[in-house]
Amino acid sequence: MEIKKINGGVVAAKGFKASGIHCGVRKNRTKRDVGIILADNVCSAAATFTLNKVKAAPVYLDMDHIENGRAQAIICNSGNANACATDGYENALRMAKAVSKATGVNEEDVLVCSTGVIGQRLNVEAIEAGVPEAVKLLDNKDQSSIDMAEAIMTTDTVRKEIAVSVMIGDKEIKIGGICKGSGMIHPNMGTMLAFITTDACISSDMLSLALKECVRTTFNRVSVDGDTSTNDTCIVLASGLAGNKEITSECDSFKAFFAGLHEVLLHLARAIAADGEGATKLVTCTISGVETEDKAETLAKSVICSSLVKAAMFGADANVGRIVCAMGYSGEDFDTTAVDVSYISNAGSITVCKDGLGLAFDEELAKKVLSENEVTIDIQLKEGDASATVWGCDLTYDYVKINGDYRT
Amino acid sequence: MEIKKINGGVVAAKGFKASGIHCGVRKNRTKRDVGIILADNVCSAAATFTLNKVKAAPVYLDMDHIENGRAQAIICNSGNANACATDGYENALRMAKAVSKATGVNEEDVLVCSTGVIGQRLNVEAIEAGVPEAVKLLDNKDQSSIDMAEAIMTTDTVRKEIAVSVMIGDKEIKIGGICKGSGMIHPNMGTMLAFITTDACISSDMLSLALKECVRTTFNRVSVDGDTSTNDTCIVLASGLAGNKEITSECDSFKAFFAGLHEVLLHLARAIAADGEGATKLVTCTISGVETEDKAETLAKSVICSSLVKAAMFGADANVGRIVCAMGYSGEDFDTTAVDVSYISNAGSITVCKDGLGLAFDEELAKKVLSENEVTIDIQLKEGDASATVWGCDLTYDYVKINGDYRT
Repeated sequence: MEIKKINGGVVAAKGFKASGIHCGVRKNRTKRDVGIILADNVCSAAATFTLNKVKAAPVYLDMDHIENGRAQAIICNSGNANACATDGYENALRMAKAVSKATGVNEEDVLVCSTGVIGQRLNVEAIEAGVPEAVKLLDNKDQSSIDMAEAIMTTDTVRKEIAVSVMIGDKEIKIGGICKGSGMIHPNMGTMLAFITTDACISSDMLSLALKECVRTTFNRVSVDGDTSTNDTCIVLASGLAGNKEITSECDSFKAFFAGLHEVLLHLARAIAADGEGATKLVTCTISGVETEDKAETLAKSVICSSLVKAAMFGADANVGRIVCAMGYSGEDFDTTAVDVSYISNAGSITVCKDGLGLAFDEELAKKVLSENEVTIDIQLKEGDASATVWGCDLTYDYVKINGDYRT
Repeated sequence: MEIKKINGGVVAAKGFKASGIHCGVRKNRTKRDVGIILADNVCSAAATFTLNKVKAAPVYLDMDHIENGRAQAIICNSGNANACATDGYENALRMAKAVSKATGVNEEDVLVCSTGVIGQRLNVEAIEAGVPEAVKLLDNKDQSSIDMAEAIMTTDTVRKEIAVSVMIGDKEIKIGGICKGSGMIHPNMGTMLAFITTDACISSDMLSLALKECVRTTFNRVSVDGDTSTNDTCIVLASGLAGNKEITSECDSFKAFFAGLHEVLLHLARAIAADGEGATKLVTCTISGVETEDKAETLAKSVICSSLVKAAMFGADANVGRIVCAMGYSGEDFDTTAVDVSYISNAGSITVCKDGLGLAFDEELAKKVLSENEVTIDIQLKEGDASATVWGCDLTYDYVKINGDYRT
C-alpha cells in the first residue's frame, strides 16, 4: 500500500477551505490568533478529547456538537484557553454562533477550540469582530492551511502540517492535518489540538474507530513534560468527495484509509515531540521483547518522561542508570537481569547495558551518537514478542526559561 | 508534649558513634566518601527501602540483615550506587565484612548503603582499605555526625542533620538523624538515605510501626523530580540506653517517642525538598476540605510534581491554570467548580482562584509573595475534612545543568 506525501495540509482533501488571521485575542498584532476550517458540505466527524478532569469550556461544547457524528466547520483561537474562565461555555457558544452567522453553517455543526492561558476571560468580542474577515479569506487556497496552522500556535516554534494520498481501489483519497503542541503535553491525553481533513467517504462510526486507534499509537505516545492539558482535542472531518464507496466496515478500503490516517498522525505526533518546549532533540524510546504491548508502552513512557533521562539527553550523557531506574519505578514487573540498552542515531549505535549490568563503553562514540538531533533509546527484554515506541524530547535550559515566565 | 532541639545529630543519643573519611571511591580527595555509624550494643532496628523494581545490591543485603529486627552498625559510601553493577551483592557483603573485621560486630548486624552513579563496579578495595581508619576516628565525638553526614552527600549542597529530645515519664529520650537527597527523589519511595539513631528502649516491632507511619507523612510526601531511586533507604537504630521502660505497645510513651521521631523525619524531609537539585525555593502544597487523606495526598503530589508548576514557581509566576490543570490529571475526581487557590509566604498571601474560576489579582503582590524562598500553595476543596501537605521545589536552569552532565 503506497502512501504519497502531498502538499496542502488541511485543504489538500477535496471540499475544505481554511484561513487564519489576527483578531486581537493576543496583543502582538503580527501573530495570527484565530483560524477557521470550513467544509463545503456537512462531514462525517470524529474527535478525541482530553482526559483531564478540568476541561476547557469548548471541550464540553464540542462533546455536545459532535455527538451525532457530523460537523462542518472548526474555529480555533490561540492566546487564551477559555478554561477556568468566566463566561466560558457562553463564550465558546458565541464563537460557534459567529461562524454560523458568517457562513450559514448550522451552529451545531461548528466545533470550537481554544489554547493559551488558563483562568482569564476570553476576549470573545474580538473574535466575533474578526470572524467575517477570516471567512472572507477562506478562498485564498494557497496560503490557507499555513495561516490556520499559524493561528493555533502558542509556544510552538515550527508549524506542523502534512498531507498524504492513498488509493482506495481506483480512487485517490487525500488526508491532511495540522496540529499545535509544545508544552503541557503528556501521553495520558485525548491529544493536542489537531485538525485532520479527508475527502474519503466513510461513516462516522468507522471514522471514530480509525481515529481512536491511530491516536492511541501516535499522539498518546508523546510526552514533553508530563502535563496533560485541559484543552487537548483531535478532530477529523471527512467530506466524502473522493468518490470511493462509503467505508462502513473494517474492509480493505478501511485498512488503506487507516494506513494513511496513521501516517498523518504519526508525522504530527513526532513533530510535537521534536518541537517540545525548549527541546534540542527528538528522543524516541523503543522497547521490544516484552510480554504485552501495554506493558511495553508503560515502560517506554516511564523512560521518556523521566526528568533525569531527559536532562541526560540534553547533555548527551550516556547515563544508563537513569534508564533502568525509570523502568524500575514504572509499576511494571520485569526481569531486571534481562535488560539490554543501546543508543542509536545517524552517527552510529552503542550498547551501554547488557543483561541488566552497565557496560564499559567508548565515551567518545557515545557522545557522538547522543549529539545528533534525533536519538533512539533501544531497550530489549527477553520475555515476549510485544513492543512499543514512544516519543519525547530533552529537558533544557530553555524549557525552564519558557515556563518560568510564560504567562506574563 | 515538648520536643526540644539539641545538637549532635546521629551521636546525640546515648550509645552511638560515627565518622566519615575519604577512602578513594571518589576521585576528589577533599570529599569524604565513606561513613560509619556504630552502636555500643546490638540495637532494635527498623528500615524502609525503595519500591523501585530495580534495587541496588546493598538494599537486598540490608533486607536480609534487618529481618530479625536487630542491627549494630551502618556503613555507607557515596560516589557509586552499587546498582546494575558487576559483583554487586558480593561487594556489598565485603563492605559489611570489613566493618565486622575492624569492630568485632557480627557481620549480619552491619547494614550497608551506597549512593552515586549507577551501572559501574564499586571500588570496594578502596573501602576495605579505608574502614580501619574510619573506625579509628569513631571516638572523635565532636565532629563525627557532621563527618558522616558529609560522607553520604552527592549533589546535596547542604548537610542535613537534626536531633531532638523528648521526655518519656521522667526519662529524657534523644532521637537524631542525618540524610542525603537532592536528585532522583519522588514520593513513591521507601525514602532517601536517612539514618536515625535513638537511645529509646523500644521493641523492633513498635520501632518499625513508628518508622513506617512517620515516613508515610514526611519523606514519602517529598518530590524533587519524580524519579524514585534504586537505593532509597531509611534506617533507625534504637540503643535502649535512655533507661525508659521498653515500649512494646501504642501507649503514651510510644506517642511521645512517635512525636519526636516525626519531628526528626519532618525536618529532614523538608531539608531534602529545599535542597532539591538546582532549587531556589522550598514549595509546600497543602490541600484541605477533601474527602480522604489519600485523595488529598494524590492531588497535592500531582501539583508539586508538575514541571509547569515547578517552572512557574522558579519564575515567581502566579499561574493558577497549571495548578488546577495538574489537579485535573491526577486521576482523582473532584468538583472543579469548588476549588480555591491561594499563595502564601512570609511576604503575604494572595488568592488567585475562587470556585474554580481564575481571579483578577494584584500582580505586584503576587510576585512579592512568590519571590520568597519558602512558598505555600494552599488549595481548598469543599467536600470533606481531610487534608495533606507535601513538599517540593522549583525547576531551575541549575537542575538542567546538574543533570545534563552529572556522570561525566
